[in-house]
Amino acid sequence: MFKNGTMIDVEIISIGDELLIGQTINTNASWMGAQLADNGIKVSYVATISDSWDAIMAALCEAQQRSRVVLITGGLGPTKDDITKQVLCSYFGTRLVLDESVLHHVESFFIKKNRPMLDVNKLQAMVPEACEILFNDLGTAPGMWFEKEGTIFVSMPGVPYEMKFLMEAYVLPRLLVRFPVKKLIRRTYLTQGIGESFLAERIADWENQLRAEGLDLAYLPSPGVVKLRISSNSGKQERVDYFGAQLIEMIPAYLYGEEEETLTEVVGRLLDQRKETVGTVESCTGGSVMASLTGISGSSAYVLGGLVTYSNELKMKLANVNAQTLETFGAVSEETVLEMASGGKQQLGVDWSISVSGIAGPTGGSEDKPVGTVWIAIDGPERKISRKFLFGSDRQRTVQMTVLTALNLLRCEILGINIEKKSD
Amino acid sequence: MFKNGTMIDVEIISIGDELLIGQTINTNASWMGAQLADNGIKVSYVATISDSWDAIMAALCEAQQRSRVVLITGGLGPTKDDITKQVLCSYFGTRLVLDESVLHHVESFFIKKNRPMLDVNKLQAMVPEACEILFNDLGTAPGMWFEKEGTIFVSMPGVPYEMKFLMEAYVLPRLLVRFPVKKLIRRTYLTQGIGESFLAERIADWENQLRAEGLDLAYLPSPGVVKLRISSNSGKQERVDYFGAQLIEMIPAYLYGEEEETLTEVVGRLLDQRKETVGTVESCTGGSVMASLTGISGSSAYVLGGLVTYSNELKMKLANVNAQTLETFGAVSEETVLEMASGGKQQLGVDWSISVSGIAGPTGGSEDKPVGTVWIAIDGPERKISRKFLFGSDRQRTVQMTVLTALNLLRCEILGINIEKKSD
Repeated sequence: MFKNGTMIDVEIISIGDELLIGQTINTNASWMGAQLADNGIKVSYVATISDSWDAIMAALCEAQQRSRVVLITGGLGPTKDDITKQVLCSYFGTRLVLDESVLHHVESFFIKKNRPMLDVNKLQAMVPEACEILFNDLGTAPGMWFEKEGTIFVSMPGVPYEMKFLMEAYVLPRLLVRFPVKKLIRRTYLTQGIGESFLAERIADWENQLRAEGLDLAYLPSPGVVKLRISSNSGKQERVDYFGAQLIEMIPAYLYGEEEETLTEVVGRLLDQRKETVGTVESCTGGSVMASLTGISGSSAYVLGGLVTYSNELKMKLANVNAQTLETFGAVSEETVLEMASGGKQQLGVDWSISVSGIAGPTGGSEDKPVGTVWIAIDGPERKISRKFLFGSDRQRTVQMTVLTALNLLRCEILGINIEKKSD
Repeated sequence: MFKNGTMIDVEIISIGDELLIGQTINTNASWMGAQLADNGIKVSYVATISDSWDAIMAALCEAQQRSRVVLITGGLGPTKDDITKQVLCSYFGTRLVLDESVLHHVESFFIKKNRPMLDVNKLQAMVPEACEILFNDLGTAPGMWFEKEGTIFVSMPGVPYEMKFLMEAYVLPRLLVRFPVKKLIRRTYLTQGIGESFLAERIADWENQLRAEGLDLAYLPSPGVVKLRISSNSGKQERVDYFGAQLIEMIPAYLYGEEEETLTEVVGRLLDQRKETVGTVESCTGGSVMASLTGISGSSAYVLGGLVTYSNELKMKLANVNAQTLETFGAVSEETVLEMASGGKQQLGVDWSISVSGIAGPTGGSEDKPVGTVWIAIDGPERKISRKFLFGSDRQRTVQMTVLTALNLLRCEILGINIEKKSD
């Protein structure tokens, strides 16, 4: 019925009022999309709909028009508001029948869990006659596989780990047999410290060459980080790697990693390899740089500790900043942030000291030092540097940007990469 | 064109390949759904689609059939793969024109940020002639408001904080004027430190009484916090408040606030009112308690600073913990965490000192002190307390739970509420 090798269109229908009113975030659809994409299967549509008969029925009809595989989650619980099974029966012109093997499966589930089985749980063994059962080892609602007029429909529970079990045990393997796909070749490169537009300008020639060879490039921006994804749908692994290597050469001050790496992991690995230690002296970020550094397991190998010197008194007492410096230049200044870094290096006894002082806002700015002004300094084994940044008026975002920027500055200093001074 | 007072159907179209392949989770749709629901407006459909012309066009056509308000996010960036604006022009039979006021807005945005403006950014000032502009104070892509055959379409950027700004500044207020809805009466009470099932058991009688009067109660659990939402759809404001007041009396050690308050805000307000100061000495949380305290504007009034003593050396050097204590009882012990709190109180010169020491995991546990064991101590003006918790094996979750628990302990100590000692 399907030609082998063709790209199939998969559609996801996520059923649940809790998704529409934002009580639950639709992480199921993201997880499924990522798993399928990793296997070369593309999700082309996600419909998030309510638990109502009309909404489910309409979504099934539309999906059949549009897609050859429809993956449905949610609405399979034993309570009254879960009606997916009934709608599926109506849509496929079939009826609910008691399936002895499912009943047995549900009974063993309760025995294994050492919990009493309620009458309502027996309803889970009532399944549409026309479907093939996918036994759910982690819960009581089975998965159901239907085919109608050339489209596959799979209904799964909305509980994330049950859905994941069914996807991994049955759905993905079966889809890969039915639709052997050529795996999309791609590689993601991570950059920090350069906005999407500046990055695009900087790598324009390279991007044109890449596109001329039939490869594709996507910019995936998030606060402080822009991911660049090179892909080839004609199997050019070698060319993807070639352009990736060029990119790494081209923008070393920004490009910090690949695929799923975080800046914290990259910096942590560098410190770990070199057996060097790090500490922080933070003001406006209130410990967030340190919290990020210690957010990964094993960080105690290279993180010794940090100071949060929110008040000027503690900047002097804990980080040895001179009263004169604070008075002359203010807490948010190059002079102060450099003294903080040096004081921290000494007090904490670390190889690398990161210091931060800024105005996180939304209040506290001046004409001279607007809200969002942040000074960052690094004092390392060989030299001290400081940089000034302007991150805007959103407090949370400024903290987030400062953390990423500080980590990338540290990465560059460790690797001896010269960071351009921003003109301002 | 619309009847006042009727429930309107809102549809969200989320545009972006990164959503379909699971690289980005669609939190925008959840946030919008929650905001609209809070204002009595229901989202009935979310379509997540690709950045392709056909997909966007088809989604617009289907939405027009189904919904009276269509909120679109994504695809408004300045790069080549963002085509939403072009498709909107085609759908509404209009063309892109240079809007001087938007150009001016974009120019001031770059001036304010002190960054050079690129040619590509000027493209943001090209807008469909047929739309009304919603000026975006936090970015360069404006929001666009269209009306066609009785349906409102609003296009917004996919960057979360820009979308949120446009929703709050323009879209929500306008929708509420156009479609005045009868507001569901409800009040949300926030608890920390007690699980959903224990809470339900604790307040069972009260809940029965509330339900007997025709009110409704919802449990909204998230890690560390359970929200209790009392609602009445028959206008019983007085009864909602009555039961709310009872609840506050009943569980003072857990109930920390109402509606959208955070524990950080509640604790901050208490300290601010009393003109008292706080500081922290953190080990396993690596500065996260301090980062939370300083996460709100104005916190410099009562936060002086903190110490992150990740290594034992720094626990001794910075927080005056005795070598003997560390040797005899270990870093994760009641004795150590109490000395950390007292040392911090002295070093930082604060009224309230919070200290934390634990095993965040996933490795590093022992039979005696399993992963997830966390000791928290508070040293205040009148007494010192310490408590032990067991938060499980997920590192990030343990840090999150520890921060919330430490803040709630501080709240209880400030208010003189006795916290039950957990039996373990």
